[in-house]
Amino acid sequence: MIFRAIALLMLLIAPAGAEELRGTGDLGLIVEREAGSLLVVDRSERAAIGRIEGLGDLSHASLVYSPDERFAYVFGRDGGLTKVDILTRAIVNRVVQAGNSIGGAISDDGRLVAVSNYEPGGVKVFDAETLELVADIPMGSKTVGIADVPGGRFVVATWDTGEVWLLDHSAEPADPVITKLTGIGANPYDALLTGDGRTYIVGLFGEKGLTAVDLWQDPPRATRFLPDYGKDQPDLPVYKMPHLQGWTLADGIYALPAVGLHQLLWVDAATLSEIARTDLAGQPVFAVARPDKREVWVNFAPPDNDKVQVVDVLTRQVTDTLTPGKGVLHMEFAPRGREVWLSVRDENRVEIRDARSHELLGEIPAQAPSGIFFTDRAHRTGL
Amino acid sequence: MIFRAIALLMLLIAPAGAEELRGTGDLGLIVEREAGSLLVVDRSERAAIGRIEGLGDLSHASLVYSPDERFAYVFGRDGGLTKVDILTRAIVNRVVQAGNSIGGAISDDGRLVAVSNYEPGGVKVFDAETLELVADIPMGSKTVGIADVPGGRFVVATWDTGEVWLLDHSAEPADPVITKLTGIGANPYDALLTGDGRTYIVGLFGEKGLTAVDLWQDPPRATRFLPDYGKDQPDLPVYKMPHLQGWTLADGIYALPAVGLHQLLWVDAATLSEIARTDLAGQPVFAVARPDKREVWVNFAPPDNDKVQVVDVLTRQVTDTLTPGKGVLHMEFAPRGREVWLSVRDENRVEIRDARSHELLGEIPAQAPSGIFFTDRAHRTGL
Repeated sequence: MIFRAIALLMLLIAPAGAEELRGTGDLGLIVEREAGSLLVVDRSERAAIGRIEGLGDLSHASLVYSPDERFAYVFGRDGGLTKVDILTRAIVNRVVQAGNSIGGAISDDGRLVAVSNYEPGGVKVFDAETLELVADIPMGSKTVGIADVPGGRFVVATWDTGEVWLLDHSAEPADPVITKLTGIGANPYDALLTGDGRTYIVGLFGEKGLTAVDLWQDPPRATRFLPDYGKDQPDLPVYKMPHLQGWTLADGIYALPAVGLHQLLWVDAATLSEIARTDLAGQPVFAVARPDKREVWVNFAPPDNDKVQVVDVLTRQVTDTLTPGKGVLHMEFAPRGREVWLSVRDENRVEIRDARSHELLGEIPAQAPSGIFFTDRAHRTGL
Repeated sequence: MIFRAIALLMLLIAPAGAEELRGTGDLGLIVEREAGSLLVVDRSERAAIGRIEGLGDLSHASLVYSPDERFAYVFGRDGGLTKVDILTRAIVNRVVQAGNSIGGAISDDGRLVAVSNYEPGGVKVFDAETLELVADIPMGSKTVGIADVPGGRFVVATWDTGEVWLLDHSAEPADPVITKLTGIGANPYDALLTGDGRTYIVGLFGEKGLTAVDLWQDPPRATRFLPDYGKDQPDLPVYKMPHLQGWTLADGIYALPAVGLHQLLWVDAATLSEIARTDLAGQPVFAVARPDKREVWVNFAPPDNDKVQVVDVLTRQVTDTLTPGKGVLHMEFAPRGREVWLSVRDENRVEIRDARSHELLGEIPAQAPSGIFFTDRAHRTGL
């Protein structure tokens, strides 16, 4: 009787395996797009420690973390906004907030989560705690490239109308002060906010060139640059428009994937003019700086998506070509750059390599893995 | 009987109040120097949630975090190296490893903790898990300004011999490959590693000027600069030599406290030449960039240590002067810069202010608080 009571009590009281007391600074989530699940990983152990299922359509899914690095907000293609607890490995809440969403951001105080939508367009802003709708901001357009701006703000570009909207929620979360910039260019398809939150770079699909918006100016000031950037070689089809999140700012120079070309472009961040090109093994998709900014790592569109190339920032030469396997979709560095994790989708595994020797340190089985997101993103602007 | 057994069991099994399941990304530690204790704070709650006592002499103490943001390694002036658990709020381990230590660093894989010592000098390297001695590297000198360099390395300067030592533990932790640079200058008193891990800046006490070491070159290359930097106004005593950790790199420009002058110096990071000065309300101690690098916040040596000044990076003008109270020793920004925490030592409290409106958001009682350390430092190089 005593023992039965004690056994029962232990079941009730004792933490489940998933609920051990632990820090959350070395955790991460890997998107398993076809399974609609997230693999929970431990960087220190180089291992998967759990899985969270039932997140719907995760193709092109992205996510952001709460400031305490315990919760993630997952933005699904199906319009689902799901809050997950990486300690208990459970879905905390889920709302289907739109017909077709493409990304989101969390405010710098962690209190608001904003989602940009294709269908019905505009931006919806939710309470990060409850997922209750706080503000609904129709913009008469699909929206792309939403990012958190310091000071309780968000910035987003509009596909149909070629505008940039700056939403300031700092005084009144439910009723943001809106600053609208028009004439940004035809059909923004993606955008990037630099890590300091100063420069918002908008990629254009409807015309060549890009637009940089300086958010430190009042009102923000837009500048067109790289007037020839875009698809300009009719004999080379563009297999995949590069994400602007694949741009990198290293040592005052942007490294960016050339659209439809087998090249990396180097652009001076101060003058916004092209200063060099590096020939690559294929059409680049992501160009990601190692955290020390000494190297840029590049992955590729098919048929070269089995490769990764490493480019030295000082010499702008390719220093190594790796072949992790078919379908290298994403690269994520440990925050201080000691190692890099690579999704190898078609081989259902994640590779872990030393970021200097390039030696293979470990592998983790995963179901068609795509995006890898470590919790240190909680502390960075524009991710 | 049953109930007594159950009650006993609950005491044994149930987590203590301090051991709730929670994320660690929004936690921090505040040094209470005279009490020899650490206040555990929660950024999200803007509150103290516990205290860890018994750490010995914490004057000039600093600390670093494990990659999982659960443990801190505290470097005390008395040579004590203490590992604390911020979740259970307990001392995990403590060794008195030297007679007089002045700082430490943790390797980029989180496996090694290095301590630089005045007495007996040199550097000792410990296993981060167990605090067992891994390597003892005498250098024939007191050492200062130790920092973690990407790739399993540490860098440190030697006070007596004017050298910089680069220790590479990546292949053999117990037997580092040593690169020694001589002729750095007379009596380095402190040093700073830039956030990308590229440039190590050494301040000199025995002569004027500073030395910048470019760690991306092989071998590392040293350059002397600012030949007039140092105490040069005999009528103005230097109340406190500014910490080089109080330097800031914003937008390609260093902002640094002028020694013995009421000025902030602006130095071009590429050419290492002075480009401007800003007049201040006192002798600056720390010049800290808000995380978006738009502003530099400055505190002061006595008798002006009741003030904080805010300087705009674009115009280099003082835009605000705050008077939090006597003994403002340290400023720490939330990682994405929404708010700033200020130690007001002589008033036994920590102030929390909005980093844009400068509005007071909260206060926390603390015993003679000095350094404030948020856990996001775990993810940054050179802190």
